Amino acid sequence: MTSAKTPTLLVISAHAGDFVWRAGGAIALATGRGELAKVVCLSFGERGESAKAWRAGRTLDEIKAIRREEAQNAAAALGAEIEFLDAGDYPLVETPELVDRLVRIYREVEPDVVLTHPLADPYNGDHPAAARMALQARVLAQAAGYDAPGEPLGAPPVFFFEPHQPEQCDFKPDVLLDITPVFDRKRKAMECLPAQQHMWDYYTDLAKRRGVQLRRNAGPNLGLPHDTMGEAYMRLYPQVTDVLA
Amino acid sequence: MTSAKTPTLLVISAHAGDFVWRAGGAIALATGRGELAKVVCLSFGERGESAKAWRAGRTLDEIKAIRREEAQNAAAALGAEIEFLDAGDYPLVETPELVDRLVRIYREVEPDVVLTHPLADPYNGDHPAAARMALQARVLAQAAGYDAPGEPLGAPPVFFFEPHQPEQCDFKPDVLLDITPVFDRKRKAMECLPAQQHMWDYYTDLAKRRGVQLRRNAGPNLGLPHDTMGEAYMRLYPQVTDVLA
Amino acid sequence: MTSAKTPTLLVISAHAGDFVWRAGGAIALATGRGELAKVVCLSFGERGESAKAWRAGRTLDEIKAIRREEAQNAAAALGAEIEFLDAGDYPLVETPELVDRLVRIYREVEPDVVLTHPLADPYNGDHPAAARMALQARVLAQAAGYDAPGEPLGAPPVFFFEPHQPEQCDFKPDVLLDITPVFDRKRKAMECLPAQQHMWDYYTDLAKRRGVQLRRNAGPNLGLPHDTMGEAYMRLYPQVTDVLA
Amino acid sequence: MTSAKTPTLLVISAHAGDFVWRAGGAIALATGRGELAKVVCLSFGERGESAKAWRAGRTLDEIKAIRREEAQNAAAALGAEIEFLDAGDYPLVETPELVDRLVRIYREVEPDVVLTHPLADPYNGDHPAAARMALQARVLAQAAGYDAPGEPLGAPPVFFFEPHQPEQCDFKPDVLLDITPVFDRKRKAMECLPAQQHMWDYYTDLAKRRGVQLRRNAGPNLGLPHDTMGEAYMRLYPQVTDVLA
Amino acid sequence: MTSAKTPTLLVISAHAGDFVWRAGGAIALATGRGELAKVVCLSFGERGESAKAWRAGRTLDEIKAIRREEAQNAAAALGAEIEFLDAGDYPLVETPELVDRLVRIYREVEPDVVLTHPLADPYNGDHPAAARMALQARVLAQAAGYDAPGEPLGAPPVFFFEPHQPEQCDFKPDVLLDITPVFDRKRKAMECLPAQQHMWDYYTDLAKRRGVQLRRNAGPNLGLPHDTMGEAYMRLYPQVTDVLA
Amino acid sequence: MTSAKTPTLLVISAHAGDFVWRAGGAIALATGRGELAKVVCLSFGERGESAKAWRAGRTLDEIKAIRREEAQNAAAALGAEIEFLDAGDYPLVETPELVDRLVRIYREVEPDVVLTHPLADPYNGDHPAAARMALQARVLAQAAGYDAPGEPLGAPPVFFFEPHQPEQCDFKPDVLLDITPVFDRKRKAMECLPAQQHMWDYYTDLAKRRGVQLRRNAGPNLGLPHDTMGEAYMRLYPQVTDVLA
Repeated sequence: MTSAKTPTLLVISAHAGDFVWRAGGAIALATGRGELAKVVCLSFGERGESAKAWRAGRTLDEIKAIRREEAQNAAAALGAEIEFLDAGDYPLVETPELVDRLVRIYREVEPDVVLTHPLADPYNGDHPAAARMALQARVLAQAAGYDAPGEPLGAPPVFFFEPHQPEQCDFKPDVLLDITPVFDRKRKAMECLPAQQHMWDYYTDLAKRRGVQLRRNAGPNLGLPHDTMGEAYMRLYPQVTDVLA
Repeated sequence: MTSAKTPTLLVISAHAGDFVWRAGGAIALATGRGELAKVVCLSFGERGESAKAWRAGRTLDEIKAIRREEAQNAAAALGAEIEFLDAGDYPLVETPELVDRLVRIYREVEPDVVLTHPLADPYNGDHPAAARMALQARVLAQAAGYDAPGEPLGAPPVFFFEPHQPEQCDFKPDVLLDITPVFDRKRKAMECLPAQQHMWDYYTDLAKRRGVQLRRNAGPNLGLPHDTMGEAYMRLYPQVTDVLA
Repeated sequence: MTSAKTPTLLVISAHAGDFVWRAGGAIALATGRGELAKVVCLSFGERGESAKAWRAGRTLDEIKAIRREEAQNAAAALGAEIEFLDAGDYPLVETPELVDRLVRIYREVEPDVVLTHPLADPYNGDHPAAARMALQARVLAQAAGYDAPGEPLGAPPVFFFEPHQPEQCDFKPDVLLDITPVFDRKRKAMECLPAQQHMWDYYTDLAKRRGVQLRRNAGPNLGLPHDTMGEAYMRLYPQVTDVLA
Repeated sequence: MTSAKTPTLLVISAHAGDFVWRAGGAIALATGRGELAKVVCLSFGERGESAKAWRAGRTLDEIKAIRREEAQNAAAALGAEIEFLDAGDYPLVETPELVDRLVRIYREVEPDVVLTHPLADPYNGDHPAAARMALQARVLAQAAGYDAPGEPLGAPPVFFFEPHQPEQCDFKPDVLLDITPVFDRKRKAMECLPAQQHMWDYYTDLAKRRGVQLRRNAGPNLGLPHDTMGEAYMRLYPQVTDVLA
Repeated sequence: MTSAKTPTLLVISAHAGDFVWRAGGAIALATGRGELAKVVCLSFGERGESAKAWRAGRTLDEIKAIRREEAQNAAAALGAEIEFLDAGDYPLVETPELVDRLVRIYREVEPDVVLTHPLADPYNGDHPAAARMALQARVLAQAAGYDAPGEPLGAPPVFFFEPHQPEQCDFKPDVLLDITPVFDRKRKAMECLPAQQHMWDYYTDLAKRRGVQLRRNAGPNLGLPHDTMGEAYMRLYPQVTDVLA
Repeated sequence: MTSAKTPTLLVISAHAGDFVWRAGGAIALATGRGELAKVVCLSFGERGESAKAWRAGRTLDEIKAIRREEAQNAAAALGAEIEFLDAGDYPLVETPELVDRLVRIYREVEPDVVLTHPLADPYNGDHPAAARMALQARVLAQAAGYDAPGEPLGAPPVFFFEPHQPEQCDFKPDVLLDITPVFDRKRKAMECLPAQQHMWDYYTDLAKRRGVQLRRNAGPNLGLPHDTMGEAYMRLYPQVTDVLA
């Protein structure tokens, strides 16, 4: 990056909680390095991921308010800014207007790295819909002729974070990210989402599992600790580098 | 890497010339950084890649001597050490003995990065045979119980370099390596192989082509020059890192 | 299944005849076991699969009436209930309204098993469109917050039935279903579709072919008869079981 | 082909310049054989592929006029007819109306061969959108009941031309087309597009590269010249033939 | 199965411990149903999976004896018979003699179900080697003309058990097996392998993870308990059945 | 082809009967055009494909003699020359000597087109073994330095013929060959193999099925007859051509 701009991570997710479980470590690493992190939630997950609240008789507006507050707390715990587009879920409907809002966010934020859902998920159609819009908006934001404020976007790399059933979503890890130093912050962010308490341990176990794999792929010589914690990502585009490692 | 050992790149190729066309840039970058680079040629390519010499009536021994000298010159131009196992080509036959020799090289060299051919090539069976042996030896060298001198190997990442017809070999670039600063050294190394002069321009054009793609994937903001030159690689194992970029 | 509800098979197809050729055996097996089977036809196939009627000068309404009656007869021959959504074909257009109607059907029928088209078909875009809607509606029907009558749906398994040119549709059989005991009922159902008489033998031959493969995969020890008839299916989701067989 | 109609090639592309870089050779070969070639440009590429003009302060209408004229000149150089649908780019939006226009073109042109973009392109969403519409319209045009003038279409083969980063678009060449005799006409057509002058050499180099591969796959015995030039294509449907070659 | 023979499960693994971590649940379920289970270990994993013992200075024979005893204990805990072929590991070398021994075991055991490793594993070449031999022997045992005692084998289904890094081994679960009722026996079997104590929790966590996915794919209506434990398998051949479920 | 040599088709198959069922049409078309066709059978299929004869108590030598005679008759019916390498089946073992014999056949025959088995077949390991040797020998025969009589081979295209269970063998037809004019000769050749009488109708049905698909892919305008018969093939290498069709 040639500019003096603070490096920025942009996370685009379908529902309010997704970024915590799946990318909390990457976010905490970025903000821990003094970078900016912005999370965009296309919906609150109010219909599809709030079964407990519906069974408790909450109204739609109440549920959205709860989910918003929880997500704000989790973002704060990770040091990230958060914005809610309130586009509705189950289904999250792809529209030109929503894509245009994302283009404007890209142009404003000028992210150096983008995180979103993978493109396949037979368990949840909102996830691929969010990913398709995130990717389309990124390409549109690159076009000199696209009518939106700001400069044409560069080509920030895109990483897909891990879905709930990775193998069924054609998710094969390309990158194992060492989140050991920030795992406690990720855990605190998860604990901001009390309605999904069963997920706290599930995603802690997953971080351990990815950590074991990370150590195995890094080699014992690297001296990584036994309690290494990891997050897995896929790349959409080839890595650009000047050193193979 | 925790040791004070000089970082080392190990390149295992089927024939004497392969490392020049396909990985010359990566080698020159490594040696340019003060690292070690070792090239292992399983054969000289004496039968399968020396048509011109055969048509000129050279004997097998003459051809091997020519190919050896050319490859030594090319390695020198890249600053790399080179070793010839003289295992024969067309076909390069996989044997336990040859794999064992490679295990011993791994144990001795303790490479931090390994380069070899991709696993599929319908035009040249020696290339996948070399890759299979290189990969098998790497895993064997990791085993505490494998009977060979030296310490068990760590888990150095493996990169496949680009084959002649990438799409037919299921080669999809995962990494685009910027070789601009060392391209003139790669060109000089190519020019050490006069029998394949038609390849000099072919691989220069390929480097330009990969450079164009590298710039596109890096984004215009990075300020890469128009004459960026590149090499493409695939990863066998996931990247291990503590920063997404 | 824990409830005392009669097990129910739901078949969602693009055109009026699809369920007969491709899933007639599965339907007849289910109804033969005393289960319910419901077929939903998104269109009549009035434009895309009625060439003979168009050439004979029939009007659109006449063709729809003919196709409706034929499909009703075929469903009756298989013991299935049938419903026509009359959403139009060539193209079958995906709309939120149509998906919502399917959600309501899922909630009402509470199917234990779902059959639909595979997701790829370069010969007929209506088939994947029907499948996408069938799958999206199934996921929406599972959401507690989705505003439609009935209880949230469970997770009924989904099977894709066989397309006309399976290899070109990435159709690889995961399940070979033995339809020998009901093949005569399938044949009778096929004969309810006189406009496509050339298909009767075509799909009888296919059932034989799949039967040969079924016997080969089952092993000779199972004592299956030489005239075993089969239908092939793909699974979208992993099989859940407590015995490997 | 049984009719006496002049064989016709139909090329459907997203933007005004695509047909030149990617299919100019195939077009020139066809017109050189006395066949008809028709190019349909869904947009001018006015927003997404005219960065230089935008930076120079041109208006949208000016840019569209420039792109139109350039594309007309290039089509003329190739001996092809050209039609612009002016449907807008970045994004090119899929609509039933646009598909219907394509159906009518298919019915009118009755193409014997169809060329379009491949279905995946993570760098440019307009390309797959154009391809999806081109393919959907082709299938709709085959239906006797589709309400548009003309006879139902046959089943012309579809070829995908080569994208800018083939491996990232899952583009694996199925066909290597020898364009040596018409390459000078392709070069002249490219030179009708002065705003993209850097592409002239890029696509000349690509033609050389595909030519090298063509010679390798054809075998030395065929006596192809060293400066053989090629274009690569993928088939969507299996080849139909009465001779294996 | 038409014979009165007791149903038999055959497990073919590369190393002494593999069957415990990866298929202990399936084995315990089978023996719990009164079926027979036979485990064949091609090697003891003496070189590649006994790092701790090597570091402790044990000899090869000592390590083999330790591994044998541990595996016998684990098999006993699961109610399975076990046989060691002592063919050596790292590398496990494929030979006609070893395949022939497996053919004879197939002919003798007449398994109804076969479990083995998946065919890809970039971390451990012995696993695919074991799988290739297991599969080749199964096909040979089916041939009337293969010269070995016993009757030609039927066509028992083959399931691949889960490797350590499933996504890197192209492992996509086709079957989720509910091992809840026997998980305590699997845990006891794991505890028979004290040298790999870190694996006890790792594979307990994995069983939980697969259990969560199993419940999600089964649907909430099935009333599966929250602590459902699972094992994942791939099928090599299509399932043969007379009911879709 | 530039030489005046009669065009030659080379068919390399694992067992004596394979060429009849799977490539009989292609062979009859070639010989019907006045070309040469040579069939090489690596084994007689004496162990793996002669169950009936084994059950009838025939000896190995008797079975080989029967299979030889039947295959000779079938080859004669197709107008092809046939050679038996008698390398043994179940398993067909890959050896350097066998590959060398194939190299010599390539050099002698100088085929213009090569047919063999596809590379995957989970039902029969001899088929991929034959294919691997056929492909390796073809590449070796191209090398100027390979020590065998004759000139270096060109690059004849390779087609894989259709296996028994195509979808399980990753067989996706790239080419549909119209064998209508020679189908009666293929049928007569099949009838030379009385021990496999159940296959006569099976492969007649398959030819009809591929014929239906052929007509669909060719388009109704081509005027192909309703009883079009077909064979399906995959290409290993891209097609080289100067006309898209």
